[in-house]
Amino acid sequence: MTLSEIAAWLIENDRYLIMTHRRPDGDTLASAAALALGLKALGKTVYLYPNAEITERFQDIAGPHLMPEGYAFDHVVTVDTASEDMFPAGAEHLAGRVSLSIDHHPSNTQYARLTYVDADCAACSEIIYALLQTLGVAITQEMALALYVALATDTGCFCYANTTAETHRIAAALMETGIDAGEVNRLLFRSKTRARVLLEGLILSSLEFYFDDTVCIVTITQDMLSRTRATDNDTDDIASISSGIDGVRVGITIREIENGACKVSVRTTPDVDANALCARFGGGGHTMAAGCTIIAPIEDVRRNLLDELSKLLT
Amino acid sequence: MTLSEIAAWLIENDRYLIMTHRRPDGDTLASAAALALGLKALGKTVYLYPNAEITERFQDIAGPHLMPEGYAFDHVVTVDTASEDMFPAGAEHLAGRVSLSIDHHPSNTQYARLTYVDADCAACSEIIYALLQTLGVAITQEMALALYVALATDTGCFCYANTTAETHRIAAALMETGIDAGEVNRLLFRSKTRARVLLEGLILSSLEFYFDDTVCIVTITQDMLSRTRATDNDTDDIASISSGIDGVRVGITIREIENGACKVSVRTTPDVDANALCARFGGGGHTMAAGCTIIAPIEDVRRNLLDELSKLLT
Repeated sequence: MTLSEIAAWLIENDRYLIMTHRRPDGDTLASAAALALGLKALGKTVYLYPNAEITERFQDIAGPHLMPEGYAFDHVVTVDTASEDMFPAGAEHLAGRVSLSIDHHPSNTQYARLTYVDADCAACSEIIYALLQTLGVAITQEMALALYVALATDTGCFCYANTTAETHRIAAALMETGIDAGEVNRLLFRSKTRARVLLEGLILSSLEFYFDDTVCIVTITQDMLSRTRATDNDTDDIASISSGIDGVRVGITIREIENGACKVSVRTTPDVDANALCARFGGGGHTMAAGCTIIAPIEDVRRNLLDELSKLLT
Repeated sequence: MTLSEIAAWLIENDRYLIMTHRRPDGDTLASAAALALGLKALGKTVYLYPNAEITERFQDIAGPHLMPEGYAFDHVVTVDTASEDMFPAGAEHLAGRVSLSIDHHPSNTQYARLTYVDADCAACSEIIYALLQTLGVAITQEMALALYVALATDTGCFCYANTTAETHRIAAALMETGIDAGEVNRLLFRSKTRARVLLEGLILSSLEFYFDDTVCIVTITQDMLSRTRATDNDTDDIASISSGIDGVRVGITIREIENGACKVSVRTTPDVDANALCARFGGGGHTMAAGCTIIAPIEDVRRNLLDELSKLLT
């Protein structure tokens, strides 16, 4: 499908339900909100699926568009959702019933009747921006704000390697509408909850270094979470703390979860295979970022990981 | 002066010495390097002043252009340097002898014979980019890399409120040359020295909150610096730690320096006047960011600041 064909289909039909993914981030929520605003501008009836996991931070953007109870939709459209496994809680019954999937994940499983994937886009919102242009929608400040939030979230504020020249060109166009991008960025990237700051303090004070300081292990116990009153919202991107230290080739974050298990995140430099390490514990991922869940106390998890690492780091 | 007039002057003359400012940041150093590369492309002889304070991080960019001993220059050009007070160590004798000042500080004191200031630019490198275009220089990858480094440094990777649509447009053009912006950003923004991480750990573990948690004080003692082996390079942007915590209106960083004195940085929300607070101790700055030096032990500095704050926060 081309973007023009997707646009034609959206103009032809009506009564849309836009669905975001499980554990929704800024890209899926704000892309959905921007698409909803664009379709409304075309006179369509459109709502967002009431994803129960929307965090405080994105309530203002997604909240106004949530579906009222009993909404009779004709078409489900997913944004930034690679597979039906990623459908939000309560939406399992919509598997097999999605009309259109708009996505930037190359792993999209083609579960929808119509699929548009552009894996070169840093954020799904880049596709939504192009789609709104194709639809002839004039980008309002409200749309621009949502699209900017999505773009900034998925690129770590234009910092990650996924950022392209096109990402910057879109950011420029969005800023021309007069949005206060500086304030968006302050909220998204330059402010932390007190719980997060206290948790980071505990983490940074208990870093462990191994193998000539090339391996750094961060341990997050349930006790640390309760002492700092940190919630899941406060642990975003914690895995990058250990891997972001100069000289560290392997950054490991071990987090104590329920039922005597630990969740392990591994980040590596290109010369160490994070996927290979995690695969030995039944997990997996990418070469430089992988994870696994190990049912054992933290001390055992740490020792087992170090044992396996000693074989990998030769 | 217009940019065309500056360009004409640069083409007409030769044998330039480009000078960066005291405590040089990425903008002054990389802007200077990009201008040097551009002028070299035009066949000019040009070197950078050997600023003694160039940090490790920017050696690769500025290092190759440093002036050899005994270089007989015709014209001194400063970049990103608002006043002669900002000249680097050893360059005091060049006061009154600068031919051209290219700057984005509105406070530029017009100390040069020719001055070009554009205060709407987030980084001085935005001006250098426009100047190279005006000079008809084809932007090479090496120039693009320097200009990108300068742009990213001064905008906190396109995060601060000074970032404009034009900033993003320039970033897009620079990325089109094929530079690895992701790797630049990883080094500049996503990696920390071990000393910095350990220092942050000590800081975050000893945050003090006052006035219903609206005031947060960070204290950095000489002991903390020596225990973590942190140097000046490791304390960049430390002042934003306390002010970036949700609910904090006044973030204060007290740093013990030599001779029984403390350096104080104050960051505030718009409703509290940082300048007014610092002015009571002989310092100053802006409404939301100011500083002062107080000759007293840390405990006294803290108490005096809290006393004055109790009058301001009413």
